[in-house]
Amino acid sequence: MTRAPAETTGLGAPLPPGSRIGILGGGQLGRMLAVAAHRLGLRTGIYSDVLDAPAVQVTDRHWIGAYDDARQLRAFAAACDAVTFEFENIPAATIEAVSELTPVRPGARAIERTQDRLAERKLLDELQIPVAPYRNVDSEADLTASAGALGVPLILKTRRFGYDGKGQARIIDHAAVPAEYSAIARQPAIVEQKIPFLREVSQIVVRGLDGALAFYPLCENTHRDGILHRTVAPATADDELSAAARDAAGAVAEALEFVGTLTVEFFVVEGSGSARLIANEIAPRVHNSGHWTLEGAVTDQFENHIRAVAGWPLGACEARGSWEMRNLIGEDANEWHSLSAQAGAHLHLYGKADARPGRKMGHVTRAL
Amino acid sequence: MTRAPAETTGLGAPLPPGSRIGILGGGQLGRMLAVAAHRLGLRTGIYSDVLDAPAVQVTDRHWIGAYDDARQLRAFAAACDAVTFEFENIPAATIEAVSELTPVRPGARAIERTQDRLAERKLLDELQIPVAPYRNVDSEADLTASAGALGVPLILKTRRFGYDGKGQARIIDHAAVPAEYSAIARQPAIVEQKIPFLREVSQIVVRGLDGALAFYPLCENTHRDGILHRTVAPATADDELSAAARDAAGAVAEALEFVGTLTVEFFVVEGSGSARLIANEIAPRVHNSGHWTLEGAVTDQFENHIRAVAGWPLGACEARGSWEMRNLIGEDANEWHSLSAQAGAHLHLYGKADARPGRKMGHVTRAL
Repeated sequence: MTRAPAETTGLGAPLPPGSRIGILGGGQLGRMLAVAAHRLGLRTGIYSDVLDAPAVQVTDRHWIGAYDDARQLRAFAAACDAVTFEFENIPAATIEAVSELTPVRPGARAIERTQDRLAERKLLDELQIPVAPYRNVDSEADLTASAGALGVPLILKTRRFGYDGKGQARIIDHAAVPAEYSAIARQPAIVEQKIPFLREVSQIVVRGLDGALAFYPLCENTHRDGILHRTVAPATADDELSAAARDAAGAVAEALEFVGTLTVEFFVVEGSGSARLIANEIAPRVHNSGHWTLEGAVTDQFENHIRAVAGWPLGACEARGSWEMRNLIGEDANEWHSLSAQAGAHLHLYGKADARPGRKMGHVTRAL
Repeated sequence: MTRAPAETTGLGAPLPPGSRIGILGGGQLGRMLAVAAHRLGLRTGIYSDVLDAPAVQVTDRHWIGAYDDARQLRAFAAACDAVTFEFENIPAATIEAVSELTPVRPGARAIERTQDRLAERKLLDELQIPVAPYRNVDSEADLTASAGALGVPLILKTRRFGYDGKGQARIIDHAAVPAEYSAIARQPAIVEQKIPFLREVSQIVVRGLDGALAFYPLCENTHRDGILHRTVAPATADDELSAAARDAAGAVAEALEFVGTLTVEFFVVEGSGSARLIANEIAPRVHNSGHWTLEGAVTDQFENHIRAVAGWPLGACEARGSWEMRNLIGEDANEWHSLSAQAGAHLHLYGKADARPGRKMGHVTRAL
């Protein structure tokens, strides 16, 4: 499904094959982005704060440095024709420094409004996309008052640097407020009602440099211990729910003047008559719930992100049948040999040596 | 289609993720092999005699040197857990030097018997796989005598270093013998009857380290100016023809104690009653006619080659529907932008800057 351009943002000539796309971040998302870029005849360069990171292994140029190492960032930016990122917790100053030398896509606005959960919630409010009732928390007194107003159970989330369930605490009774506030190190946070949901889904959208929007089919996700466990796509959803997810994700992409792949996670909740969506999180990047697109969609989410960043036309997002994706977390990856022998299992491993508990080591997709 | 192991060759433990697969050769086949290895969590290293070659762009380690640079070859071999190659015109001494330090898969036998067209024809004769009537040519006198015995038209082919129609000449009358022998620089050659064929097909087979065989569907190929232009797969072929192609390719793979992906090209000719196959060429490697497998088969030819070289189980070779692949030769690649906008076209570019006439710059696959 591809909509005509709704607005244009920064029109620019497409970067020709042979151009170098810089990627801030050396993890598995950067690795899969780099592989997609190579397929299109583009070069890549990885900026990572870790030696021998997954993405560093698959490119001919990399820069190792802290995300506030101005000299190293300049060297990286100067060598790249455009820069993107694979995780949203990059300091705004880093994006700014790189932007002085080369286009950063998506830009600073996407980072600013999605790396802070309060700003993210306000954006969703502005766009009239339903979210769980929430309050801002700057002190224990705020949290106590919010717990009174919203009732329990609640989810407490740090405003910044949360991912895969990190920086979150559950408050099941009012007496637990001090302990749970300490559990998130008394950081600035939001607190929101814990919504009883039927299912979790995500909508992945790609917005081109010319403003064109392309939507992947809705994904249905199951989490374990706060980490994505399994995605099935296309999700079972009626036309109304699917359209609501597309409209919401498209509105977010447009409001952020986004360029590239963006994901909105939703809860599906009981509505009056039919199910409805509550937005849970915006990820301004390719997303774990879109890994099934590597084999399961006409164009995968990584290639479409690279196409957008390079100013190329977007590829078709249609699913090629029904797919499941299962993450390989920690020691799950030790089963690589038996997984590689399963007929029809597409094994992806990320080049991480140390299978620590909770660490995303790889994933497997299968046609259903 | 996967056969049970018919024999075992060099049994070895599978190389675990994180192992480094060395690839001799820096062209597009090496590039696509490296990308496939990275998906499986394997590392790669490229040995190339050209700076900034297509495969060098997509890996973190490369060695630039001539194919007889013993010191550089040793450094490469020492850093790799297994080595393979992406083109067959590698000096036997090179393979030998590398073999002293690390396993080379496929091994020296595959190189020896396929880089010399006379040895290749003799192998096919031994396996009773039909080939066009041919003669060895070591002198102009040989060629004159052969032309008399075989009749015209004939195809004269150098014994070594031919590819994409290079090192070939057509002899349409006996008077042309001296000129055409000069056209191939009076090199050792074979001469064979030019066979009137109905179609050209290729059979790609993968043989695992344990001797297991897996067969891709038959591919139908169209050439232009001696270079592959278009492949359609699966080819239209009755069961008998398909079985003959599989049997021949499987027999070649077993005779060579091959490990990895191997291709046999055939002419389909009129037979008594039904069509039959004449083997034309063995390519001891992944093959241009298998590029459709990147999107069109459950496991692509590059991943299966890497699986074999790493001692992993082979992946399923079934086609996911019907596909066509078109090569982008020379200036064809200048159309990259319009090709990238075609719905359902999968564009692959190889990272070559200079679109010289006859140069393979990329390819496009499409579901039919």
